[in-house]
This record gives sequence, structure tokens and C-alpha cells, in this order.
Amino acid sequence: MDSAQVSQTRQNYQFSREQMEGVMKRRFFYAPSFEIYGGISGLYDYGPAGCAFQANVIDEWRKHFVLEENMLEVDCSMLTPHTVLKTSGHVDKFSDWMCKDLKSGEIFRADHLIEQVLQNRLTEHKRICNQHERDNPKLLEGQKTTKGKNGLLFKELTEEEIEDYENILARIDGFSGEDLGNIMIKYNIRNPVTFEPLQPPTAFNLMFETAIGPSGQLKGFLRPETAQGQFLNFNKLLDFNSGKVPFASASIGKSFRNEISPRAGLLRVREFLMAEIEHFLDPLDKTHPKFKTVADLKVPLLHRSAQESGETTPIIMTLGQAVRMKMIDNETLGYFMGRIYQFLIKVGADPKKLRFRQHLDTEMAHYAADCWDTELKTSYGWIECVGCADRSAYDLTVHSKKSNEKMVVKQMLPSPVEITRWEIDINRKLFGPRFRKDSKIIETALLKSTQKELQKYASSLLKDGSFAITVPGFTEEFSIDSELVTIEKKKKLEHVREYVPNVIEPSFGIGRIIYSIFEHSFWVRPEDSARGVLSFPPLVAPTKVLIVPLSNNKDLIPITTKVSEALKSIKIPFKIDDSGVSIGKRYARNDELGTPFGITIDFDSLKDESVTLRERDSTKQIRGSISDIIQSIKDISYNNISWEDSTKSLKIFQS
Amino acid sequence: MDSAQVSQTRQNYQFSREQMEGVMKRRFFYAPSFEIYGGISGLYDYGPAGCAFQANVIDEWRKHFVLEENMLEVDCSMLTPHTVLKTSGHVDKFSDWMCKDLKSGEIFRADHLIEQVLQNRLTEHKRICNQHERDNPKLLEGQKTTKGKNGLLFKELTEEEIEDYENILARIDGFSGEDLGNIMIKYNIRNPVTFEPLQPPTAFNLMFETAIGPSGQLKGFLRPETAQGQFLNFNKLLDFNSGKVPFASASIGKSFRNEISPRAGLLRVREFLMAEIEHFLDPLDKTHPKFKTVADLKVPLLHRSAQESGETTPIIMTLGQAVRMKMIDNETLGYFMGRIYQFLIKVGADPKKLRFRQHLDTEMAHYAADCWDTELKTSYGWIECVGCADRSAYDLTVHSKKSNEKMVVKQMLPSPVEITRWEIDINRKLFGPRFRKDSKIIETALLKSTQKELQKYASSLLKDGSFAITVPGFTEEFSIDSELVTIEKKKKLEHVREYVPNVIEPSFGIGRIIYSIFEHSFWVRPEDSARGVLSFPPLVAPTKVLIVPLSNNKDLIPITTKVSEALKSIKIPFKIDDSGVSIGKRYARNDELGTPFGITIDFDSLKDESVTLRERDSTKQIRGSISDIIQSIKDISYNNISWEDSTKSLKIFQS
Repeated sequence: MDSAQVSQTRQNYQFSREQMEGVMKRRFFYAPSFEIYGGISGLYDYGPAGCAFQANVIDEWRKHFVLEENMLEVDCSMLTPHTVLKTSGHVDKFSDWMCKDLKSGEIFRADHLIEQVLQNRLTEHKRICNQHERDNPKLLEGQKTTKGKNGLLFKELTEEEIEDYENILARIDGFSGEDLGNIMIKYNIRNPVTFEPLQPPTAFNLMFETAIGPSGQLKGFLRPETAQGQFLNFNKLLDFNSGKVPFASASIGKSFRNEISPRAGLLRVREFLMAEIEHFLDPLDKTHPKFKTVADLKVPLLHRSAQESGETTPIIMTLGQAVRMKMIDNETLGYFMGRIYQFLIKVGADPKKLRFRQHLDTEMAHYAADCWDTELKTSYGWIECVGCADRSAYDLTVHSKKSNEKMVVKQMLPSPVEITRWEIDINRKLFGPRFRKDSKIIETALLKSTQKELQKYASSLLKDGSFAITVPGFTEEFSIDSELVTIEKKKKLEHVREYVPNVIEPSFGIGRIIYSIFEHSFWVRPEDSARGVLSFPPLVAPTKVLIVPLSNNKDLIPITTKVSEALKSIKIPFKIDDSGVSIGKRYARNDELGTPFGITIDFDSLKDESVTLRERDSTKQIRGSISDIIQSIKDISYNNISWEDSTKSLKIFQS
Repeated sequence: MDSAQVSQTRQNYQFSREQMEGVMKRRFFYAPSFEIYGGISGLYDYGPAGCAFQANVIDEWRKHFVLEENMLEVDCSMLTPHTVLKTSGHVDKFSDWMCKDLKSGEIFRADHLIEQVLQNRLTEHKRICNQHERDNPKLLEGQKTTKGKNGLLFKELTEEEIEDYENILARIDGFSGEDLGNIMIKYNIRNPVTFEPLQPPTAFNLMFETAIGPSGQLKGFLRPETAQGQFLNFNKLLDFNSGKVPFASASIGKSFRNEISPRAGLLRVREFLMAEIEHFLDPLDKTHPKFKTVADLKVPLLHRSAQESGETTPIIMTLGQAVRMKMIDNETLGYFMGRIYQFLIKVGADPKKLRFRQHLDTEMAHYAADCWDTELKTSYGWIECVGCADRSAYDLTVHSKKSNEKMVVKQMLPSPVEITRWEIDINRKLFGPRFRKDSKIIETALLKSTQKELQKYASSLLKDGSFAITVPGFTEEFSIDSELVTIEKKKKLEHVREYVPNVIEPSFGIGRIIYSIFEHSFWVRPEDSARGVLSFPPLVAPTKVLIVPLSNNKDLIPITTKVSEALKSIKIPFKIDDSGVSIGKRYARNDELGTPFGITIDFDSLKDESVTLRERDSTKQIRGSISDIIQSIKDISYNNISWEDSTKSLKIFQS
């Protein structure tokens, strides 16, 4: 087969999740954690092949982002005290909506339940229509009912209902708890098995809680994202970068979400590997010097207003154009979208199953300026695998305020700038005696006043001769009169500009990416339907080479050793299969592990030290010296050279 | 300086922890997590340099162990349900002893407190003796007292007390809670600051607890080690390895221990990176085919009986000899000790500050056959950095029993073996009618009987005509009479041997190793005492090269770009420092980051594209073409070639 035929055969394969999961399980790519104890939903272990694949994806991520862009990688604690996540907003807002069935005690995640039920009704509707069309074409609308798989009656839907359902499904990520509750009442959504009514949605915080230290008094959580650790270290990172902005930090590590009822395998889990970048930049300048390197990349974009009008087909557009027309908010956001696209294709995502979806206004955090999810299409639908958000100055601002640690960038101005500011002068001779032991804390509070507050105080002083302020730790207000302070507008020359940087955050769910690539890579040869093939790019394949001695004849051992030593010396991961089974079976077994190359050692190898190289997808074979063959493997796996180019000087082999 | 001079200068340096921690902090190798909120003891973040160093150590670990030995790497969940850790023994036994000061609420870890107080008393004793020797040589013993730094009176110790103290300190890891309580009473050990008495030691479980799922009913813990995930997947791993033993699994990941009062920086933390190997082997054959590759390695061994007699100096011996004389229990344990030694030296541990210490009987888990800690010497004393234990068949046995999942290896016997076994035959015609709906579960229980139980039942049948059995889920016993079953001793030919493999477990605390290497690598040049040098091996140094253009003259940019592109293309991590400060300062700054090489680009570089290469430790400089210089860097960093060999064809450079 040539590569066109391979791609045709792969396209013809009708994906079966069952078939792929069979391979994943049989070859231990991953499995439910604690399976011998019955397993726990939402927790999975990666076996040797899955773990090596994950390590290779991470390694490439580090090269593609951290090394290429000189990012500052950090590794921060997962255990996180309450204060940090209270300040970031997670304690109050990081929740999903759950509904309880009081009778059975079962708990549902409201948006997922609505999605499932409405999808079901739409599917049943189609089935009923088709059936009645055949059986009894004269029935009136509304008279058509049928029993679903669970014995419940399904009714044909009106056109209005269909439109409502589709509208809800398109916007399902943007509803509040109240919205979800209203939808459930309006469309009579209940426990889909028992048909019992459910309690209205209540918020369930998704963080795992624990206590730090022996007294049990310090409440903590497992981090729900790696981002907070990066924000808290901002000053140290800025310092490490000699005070220069823009720069990016990055972090690879596990995060945790106590999902309400995780299904969908690796796609919705309670413990997951993330890779996150926080790119800190000047809010007044969101251009990117390397944007031109991705500006001509054509990508599928499903923008906000398209979704609002129920559209689900993305438009194909260059990133340059999308930024120019402000569909994508700024160059840096666009640059990262381009880099994300390149990365995902490199590690094996199918470009035809990739799209960028912009967040709806209702979906986005209130502080975010723009946010695009990179979604990969799987048998579970379109899955958010990377988020790319402009978080503005939100995180640094809230942490700075709460911790009293200034987190700003100082920029020398090319020429000084005259600015006008409200300033406060305190008459210390009177101030101390008046407030005695409290004077210090009141003074601090006064000096921390914002420009807006000072303006208000000044006008109060003018009108009433005094103003009132509240001070942390005191319930009563303090009255400050014009004897104690002077507040005036003053002109000043500033030489340094101080600002809180904004943050662009590309955030990768590694497990979701890996699972999607598994689906995108899987196919079955028409001639061998019992076994699958995983067409991973050689770069990320768990093992690069299978060495196959033709038989277990002792004479073949020295050459087998020679080949394996040669591979070991240049650190190419390989396995040897010297089991007794047929060559074909050994290769087929290994296609399931996604190993791109096979080296066969036969009795001709003894004569001239030549060996055969087999390519996984096309099953093409060529013959050459050990060193030529290994050079080809190295070039294709790591140096981005094609099979055709790298093997053109070698002989085609027919066995 | 030549390398002998460097090593002399390094030896002359009097290590100062304060000086090193200054560098660690200033260059953000690591810092307390959540520092802007005041930090939490026992939690640290790695900054860019620390994180890169850690990634390189892990990368080398993966190559040295996983790839070299074809281990099966897995990545398992950190969240772990109660059942698993109850079965493994952690719920009941994974605790430290804590003592509370009822007055202040302060909590101490009993063994650490005793250690600290006795050490203090011994130190004070020496100080007093020295002082009195000078001041008043005629005072009688017991009359000598003095005030310690905290104002408390210290007394000179008797010879008996000194011996007692030293004896306790040598065995501090082996005491029970009761022992510790008795020591505290006998030697009057109290809160060292307030001198208040403390409550007797109580066990504090070190696992962080949380609840999994929205109902809050599934109790879980954060794993205290990665080992359990590997044991639970044993059958899948055995299957992946085509049923063959020995094989090893491996896992790299975070584990968690809720330390009572962590101090000692990175050495005692609540969240830490581990790398663990579980090597499964035949209990009847603990030889290792590659043992001969390490048998001649001479290592310092502090064995059990030496410690029991208060000895603290290890003996130097080859691993071969230690295994032959059974000081080390078996070859496989010895092989891993050798590989651990090689690994630690390769990543930068000082061989003069490394020893193997065998666990005392009281220290070792009851099931363990032998255990050797690899300890590295730091300013905090000797620190356990790697444990290497023979865990016997304990873990697989307990999990198998609890989960009802058989976990055994099946081995074809070369020739069948005749064995005698008790066998039970059930008379189903009577059995079913007698027990009706319960018959199935009773039958299952009977068939699961051990040989010992069957023997007991048989003798009951003979004596009383019946026996009683208990069945899971029933409180009453069932009586089985001789009509229902026949139990007989039968001879049988067995073709397959079934056994539960034993486990040798090398377990690495990566953070402790990293911190120890920081200490072992740190020194200060006599001529520049304000700045430190971190002499990391190039293999694991965070950045390999600093590119230093002589000035920021624009003419130097093309060559700087050429050098950096060349390094990027072969993936050697580098930084450019084109700041205005002097070359010397730029290099000194970078010595603190442990960067082994510097490339200087000057105006001569414009003529012939030659550049200067500087070596960090000796500050030697040589001159050569860009490609020669980069080849040297690559050879020294990754191909284990020395500076001398790799640069001998290049010119020495004097600026």
C-alpha cells in the first residue's frame, strides 16, 4: 500500500469505540484504578504503553513550548490552603450543578442530564417518524408515540420543541443553576431510569478538601488547576527574568476535580495531568513578535455569534485575518492558538477533527477578555482539550490585594510624563493624640486610599468639613476632619510606569488530548479485523522499533544483539520479540501498540549484516545495512524526515 | 586551575548552609509555597532552575533504570480509597508519634524532639566542660552548670548519661511509642522553649484524608507512596510481560505525608516526588543475571549489628563480598544497591558523602526480609534518600486475599512433580436441596478452603461425622456432614508451579536527592566570596550553556544567532546574556545557576567565526570554531567524555 491507499483505508474504517477500548484494555494502555477492588469512577491508571505515550507527549510539549519560547517552568504544590482558593474565586464559584433524586439517593450533574435526555428525545423522535412513515403514514402529528428502550413512552416532538431542544443543546455550557432548574421543569426532565422527579439544582464545589498539619485546623484543597502557583510566584519569576515583560511561566502537573458523576472514560476524570502556560504581558501591547510565523495558518473557527445563532459549522480562516477583524481579541492570543494547532497535529491529532470554539459571554469568567477552546472530535462529540484565555489582570490583582504583596511591572518611561493625582497629607501633631493607640492603623488605611476614594473624601471635606472611613478590624467608622488631613490634587512628573500585567493562558488537558489521539489513530485492516492498528506519529509512539529475529535459532542472536546495542547507544526505545509465533502475528500484535517500525533479522542477515525494515501503516518493507536502517528510523522519528525521503536509496524488500 | 586544584579548593570550602540558601533563594531554585500568604511549612515550589534540574534528574533516572532494564513504567492515581490502604496496613500503621503541650497547644514529633534535646544536651555538655576547663579546673563533677542560649540551666552530664544518650540517638528510628514515652520521662524531656511537660506520645496517621464523589461517603487518602498502584496492577503487568518473571514495574510521581512539624527545608516535606521500582521475582531464586556488573563495586556499608553496638563508621566492601557473606540478603538486592550508587554519583552526589545503612530489626516492617537505606550526608546529618527493601510477598498476598483476585505466577515445570493434596468432593444431589438458595455461597466457601482447613475438616468428619464452617455474610455457622462431602488426601501430578512473587523495592525520594546534591555541589571561590558556584554535572545542569556576546554591539548579533540556532537544532538548553554588565559578572551570576559552559563571542569571532568556551569550575578557556566548540559541549554533557579529552585539539585561550 502507498500512503494514499493507507489514508483511504483509514478513512473507510467505521470507528468502533468498543473495538478500540478492547485494544486499550488488552494491551494495558490504561485501566480503571483499583480495578481488583471494583474500581472508582473517574480514576484511571496508565499502563506501560499509555505511560510512555504520555511521557513522549509531555516531552514534546516541553520542547515545543518551554524550550522554544524560553518559558520559565515551575513545579508548585498541589496542596493549597483555603485562603489562596478563596481569593482566586474557586471556593465560591468552582462548582457544577447537581440534582438529587430523593428516593434513590442518586445524584446527577444537571447540565449533563439535560443534554442526555434532550439528545435521547431527539433521537427517538427521528426513529418514531421513520417508523410511522413506514407503518402508518396517515397518523396525525401528536398521536405518534412509541416505547423507548427503557419502556418509557416517547412522543413525537413538535417543530417548536425540536427548535427549543437544539437551541438549549447549543448553549448548554452557558446556563446558570436557575436556568437549568427552569429547563428541567419546563421540559419535564427527571431521573431517566425511574422517572422520579429531581430536586432543583444546587451548587457542588468540585475541589477535594483536606486538612493540613496535625491539629486539623488548616483547611486546604487539592489544586483544581496549576495556574495559581504560577501567579503567586509572579514577583520571583519577574525577578528571574530581570524585570522584563513579556515572559511566560509554565507548569506540568496533576490537578484534581471531584466530578459529580464521571463517565466518558479518560475524558472526564477526577485526577488529571495538565500543562499550563501563563504568558504575562503589557495590557497596552498585546502584539506578539512571532505572530507572523502563524498568521497564514488556516484554522476552523466557531466564533461566539455563530454559536448564538445556533450554528455548529466553523468557518475556515487564517489567524491573521481573524485577528485583523477582531474575531480573535489580540495577536498573542492568536499566536498561541497557532502554536496549539501545530502542537496537536505534531503529536497525532487529526486536523479534520479539530476546531476552535470561542466561549459564549455567559460561559466566560467575568474578568476574561476572550477565550477559545481547542476542541477535538471523538465518539463522545467535540471535546474541549485546550483552553486559551485572556485572563486580564484579574488573578494578580486579587492576590495582590488580599496578600498585600505588590505585583507590578515597572517600566522606565522614555520621557517623564506629567500626571495629576490626589494626594493626602496627615497632620501628625494632631493625628496621634486624637486616635492614640489606633492612630497607626487608621493612618495606614488612609494612605492606602484609592484615587477615587481620595476624591470622595476631598469633596466631603469641602462640603461637611469631615469624612468617615472604615478600618480593618473595627466595626465603628472613624471621622476625619479637615484639621487632621489635607487632600489636594497635585501635578507630578513620573519617570516610571507601573502596571499589573495581563495574562494569556493556554491550558492543556493532557489526558483528553491523549484519548482523542487514540481515537484519531485507531483503525482496523480490512484483512485482519480481529486486530487494530494505532497509527501514532513515530515522534510520540511508546516504542519506536520492534526487533524480530526470524526464528529463535541461536545463530541469529549476535546480530540481534548488535542491532539492539546500536539502538540503545542512540537512545531509541525498542523491544525484542523472539517468541515462537509467526512474524506476521508478531507484527500484528505490535501494530496494536502503535510501534511504527519493525526490524526483521533473517538468515541472509548473517551473510551481509543487512536487515529488513517494515513500516507499520503501509506494511512496506525495505532492505539495507544495519546503520542505514537505523539512520532512517532516527530521521523519521526525530528529525521530521518522511519515509519516502529517508528510504529512497534503499532496496524494496519482498519476502 | 586544573581539576586537582579545583577539587582542593572545593574541599577547603567550609560549607555554610546560610550562604547556599541565599543562592537558592536569590536564583529561585526553590521557595516556600504560598510565600506571599506567609507560606505553609513542608510545602515548596521549584522555580525555573530547580524545576529544570529536577526534570533532568528524572530524565536520567528513566534512562538509567526504566530504559536500561526494560522496566514497565505506570502512572497510577494519587487519590486512593480507604480499602486499599487499610489492606496495605497504612491506615493502621503509617503514623508518627506526637506529643502535645496542653498549655500552648503546640505539637511535637516525639522522636525528633528527643533527638533535638539530647543532641543539645551533649553539645552543651562539651561547651561547659571546655569552659570550666579554662575557667575553674578544680570544680567537681556535677557542680558544673551553665545557662544555655535560651536561659535554661544546663548541667554537665555523667559518663553514664553520655553513653545512654549516644545509644538512644544511634537507635532513634527503632523505638515504639511506649519506648519514646519512657525515654521522655526518664530523661525529663519537655517543651524545649517553655519547659512545660508534654502529653505521652500518641500515634498520628500521616495520610491526608479526603472524600471522593458528591455524597461524601467514599473515604479516600492521598497516596503515601506510589507502590500500591503498582501492586494492584500486578496481573495486568504480568500479562503485558507475557507471563514471564522476573520483571520490574516503575513509577514516578508525587506522594503525600502530613508531617507533624516539618522543618529541615526540602528534606522533610508534605508533598514530594518519588520514583519507585517494584522488581517481582521468584522467592526461590533471588540471583540476578547482571549482578556481576556491580559485584566489584566498593561501597560503604553500615550494617545492622554494627549499629546495634553503637558503631557509626561504615565498612568499605565490594557488593560481591557483602552478598557472599549474607550481609546483604541476596544478589538482586545487591544489584540494585550497585545501580543506585552509580545513579547517585552520575547525577552529582559526592561519593565521600554516601553510605548504605541497613535497617534495624525494630525499624523494618515485620514482613521485610532485608532493607538498606542509601543515605547522603548533609548539614542536617545523614539523610535517607533511597530505600531498597525486600518486601517479600506481603503486598500481593494481602491484596489478593482482600480482593479475591488471584495474583500468582504460573511456571511450567521441566518435569511433572507428584504432590499430595487434600481434596474435597461435594455431593451435589444432597447439597443443593439441603441449603437451597444458600447452597451456592456455601459451596464457594468450601472450595476456597486452605489445605490446613481441609485437614481440620477431615479429622472432624472422622471424629464427629460433621464440621462447621463460617460463610461470608452469615452470622451463624453451617454444619456439613459426611453425607454432603468427602475429604481425602490424593496424589497428583503437577505440571505447573504457582507462586506469589517476592518484591525488591528501590524507592527514591527525588527532593531529598536534589537537596543533597545542591549541598554537595555548592562552594565559594576564595577570590569572590559574595557569590557561590554550583558544580552540577553537565548532564543534569538546568542550562548547559550561557552565550555571552562581549558587548551589545549590533555586529555581534549574527554570530550570536548562529550559535544559538546551532544549539537549538541539537536541543542543548542555553541562555543568552546580552545585558550590559561585565563578562566576569555575567559568568559569576551564571556559576550560581550551575551552568557548566559559557561561550563568549567577541570581535575576533567576526573574522574567523571562532568563539571561546569557558568551563565553570576551573574557569579555563579554550578557543575553536563554532562547530568544534558545540561538539565538545555535546560530548561532555551527554556522551560522558571528559573536558580534557574533548578539548585537547583546541587552543587554550588567554584573555
